[in-house]
Amino acid sequence: MMSKMKAILLSIGDELILGQTVDTNAAWLSQRCAALGVKVIEHATIGDDLNLIAATLRRVGGNCDVILASGGLGPTDDDLTRHALAEVLGVELEFNKSAMSRIQAFYDLLKRPMPEANHIQAMIPVGCEVMENTCGTAPGISARIGRAQAFFMPGVPREMFVMFTKCIEQRLQNAGGNVLVTRVLHTCGAGESNIAEMLGDMMVRGRNPLVNSTAQQGLVSLRINAQAPTELAAREMIAPVETALRNRLGKLVFGADEETLSSVVVERLMEMKASLATAESCTGGWIARELTDIAGVSAVYLGGWVVYNNQAKVRDLNVDATVLNQEGAVSEPVARQLAENACKRAGADYAIGVTGIAGPTGGTTQKPVGTVYIAIAGGGSTQVERFIFPGDRDGVRRRTVNYALNLLRLRLIE
Amino acid sequence: MMSKMKAILLSIGDELILGQTVDTNAAWLSQRCAALGVKVIEHATIGDDLNLIAATLRRVGGNCDVILASGGLGPTDDDLTRHALAEVLGVELEFNKSAMSRIQAFYDLLKRPMPEANHIQAMIPVGCEVMENTCGTAPGISARIGRAQAFFMPGVPREMFVMFTKCIEQRLQNAGGNVLVTRVLHTCGAGESNIAEMLGDMMVRGRNPLVNSTAQQGLVSLRINAQAPTELAAREMIAPVETALRNRLGKLVFGADEETLSSVVVERLMEMKASLATAESCTGGWIARELTDIAGVSAVYLGGWVVYNNQAKVRDLNVDATVLNQEGAVSEPVARQLAENACKRAGADYAIGVTGIAGPTGGTTQKPVGTVYIAIAGGGSTQVERFIFPGDRDGVRRRTVNYALNLLRLRLIE
Repeated sequence: MMSKMKAILLSIGDELILGQTVDTNAAWLSQRCAALGVKVIEHATIGDDLNLIAATLRRVGGNCDVILASGGLGPTDDDLTRHALAEVLGVELEFNKSAMSRIQAFYDLLKRPMPEANHIQAMIPVGCEVMENTCGTAPGISARIGRAQAFFMPGVPREMFVMFTKCIEQRLQNAGGNVLVTRVLHTCGAGESNIAEMLGDMMVRGRNPLVNSTAQQGLVSLRINAQAPTELAAREMIAPVETALRNRLGKLVFGADEETLSSVVVERLMEMKASLATAESCTGGWIARELTDIAGVSAVYLGGWVVYNNQAKVRDLNVDATVLNQEGAVSEPVARQLAENACKRAGADYAIGVTGIAGPTGGTTQKPVGTVYIAIAGGGSTQVERFIFPGDRDGVRRRTVNYALNLLRLRLIE
Repeated sequence: MMSKMKAILLSIGDELILGQTVDTNAAWLSQRCAALGVKVIEHATIGDDLNLIAATLRRVGGNCDVILASGGLGPTDDDLTRHALAEVLGVELEFNKSAMSRIQAFYDLLKRPMPEANHIQAMIPVGCEVMENTCGTAPGISARIGRAQAFFMPGVPREMFVMFTKCIEQRLQNAGGNVLVTRVLHTCGAGESNIAEMLGDMMVRGRNPLVNSTAQQGLVSLRINAQAPTELAAREMIAPVETALRNRLGKLVFGADEETLSSVVVERLMEMKASLATAESCTGGWIARELTDIAGVSAVYLGGWVVYNNQAKVRDLNVDATVLNQEGAVSEPVARQLAENACKRAGADYAIGVTGIAGPTGGTTQKPVGTVYIAIAGGGSTQVERFIFPGDRDGVRRRTVNYALNLLRLRLIE
């Protein structure tokens, strides 16, 4: 087997280095490279600076086989990629007639006169290859730099995607390397390091498939990355690892790939032909929003109450005013009554009730900011759990949403 | 004037280099650096590879004054940033007792035992400084590499934001060079090209301050970027441009910088001492969630109903069943009754009622997917507007949330 081709991605533009635009091109190119078996070893972002672009091209030209650059090919004064490339190659820019006629054709199609400024886009360093842009005016350029074949594409995502697909992808195929296929398992209910402990040797580095993890707001996702000559072979390698992970983690795993807590909860309710209602205080409609993200949810979700103040809790969900006064709105019996009465009032099989202190104010010694009660009613019983979540208002609310949906999920698969 | 401090950003993680996660940390850090007058000259992303991390640290340590790195400080085997740093510095990792006790305290708060794996997070290269993580377990690390001061932060965006703000920002202040100050004005109600037409010459490039725009889901934001030796001087340059923009755009402008539609609506309600309720069908709690994002909203927001099916509309908000049958749930009178009856039932001064077809199914010739009715009740009258929003389920819902909050805003400033 040939040695694996290594690529470096280069994103060029002041708007990127100033943070005014989030670079999505690099992630897109990385995924395409992975699918082609090309290993991306670095992604560098630099501004519209002639010397810096040239220095970076010289550096990376010695470190990889393929450079995939985007940006800096526009018609304005701050688009300097073609000048930097000419400098690195030690050649002049020359007028390319066929590139010019394609730019002209683009404007003809729009029935607009071509601005004078676009002439610069037909200036190509001597000896370089031109790649056609079918979605915009800037032609792409390909050249040899050091040991690398470099491809310069426009920075506009759509133009870049199409140029990569039409002009470059095929040249990277059969690059000798393996394809990388990734399967993601999502968990809720244990921290990242707890999961690492449970998995132990399964997360050792250097394996193929390789298992690694990422965490956010109470969710830990495990990625199984398999490298193999074909996608089918990679999937065959993933299958037993996925089974082993699921066996070790059991009910912690709630879904895979695009699945979310709300999508699996809704799917399970549909299988059971069971219905759901929600009663939210501190999350203020967020759980309802997550559920209604799922198309077709109306078959199982009957609706909910955002009972943000005490009057609403009493008026709409019949929470006992005496209990409210004695125990406080953030308490076990209030969460319980919210869930049980939401069930009754909506005629639902299950209901979620949540009440808590999202902060930043409102905390006490007994009930600090982050104190949350989550109740799941239905199937003849009600379960209420108390949590103290870390983080700010947004973090507490987000974790509450995740944990509430997860408690419901666990109830539904009992 | 001191020469301007140069920074290189480093994002570390296989999930980034594989394109599985879009890196938002770099854009965030770039913006903060710009505001501090620190010039970001490069942003490099690399995978969890010990040798590559070490080689990159050596390279960039010679090219800049500040390294801002994120990622690779987790508790698992693929978190190698601290090992790479130790290698570059030529020192060992040593156990840091106070870092350990903070990690322990984090688990105590969660009432969970600390897994063995987290011990590695208290291992710090000899001679390095520890930066406290108040949102997670991974402590940050600071060290001198070449001529650069390097700061290593967790990759989890929230943990990184807080650590940068608490431990690093102050050390980068007074770094010399022009500062870039950006003021953002947010608008709702006109498209990006309409706004560009209204502004004309004010958006010409190469100016200082420079005005540019970004658009998403019915909101267009205008950035006024000013460069000057001091923040004060930059703000003085921005002020007249902001006034001119506001004069041209009038009520289209709803806020600036961190303000959101929900924050300005809540603020206005507080000024007016007026209260609000919500009744949502297609947005399923999203408007309520946006409102309850705002700390202190309980002073004005009385709560809401997620009336996702017809029974809930009739039962909770007294929508006329005959009208529902004759006109359909997505209709002018149903939106009107939702808002008016939410007002009455909650005893609120104002209420929002929304009903629509978010898709992907449910559309008809008369009422295609994207058809939405938004009603604002209060102040003695009810206004109902019909829209047909473009986009998928998520886009239709998001636009509905924005337009509903904007219609309420316009009502409140009448």
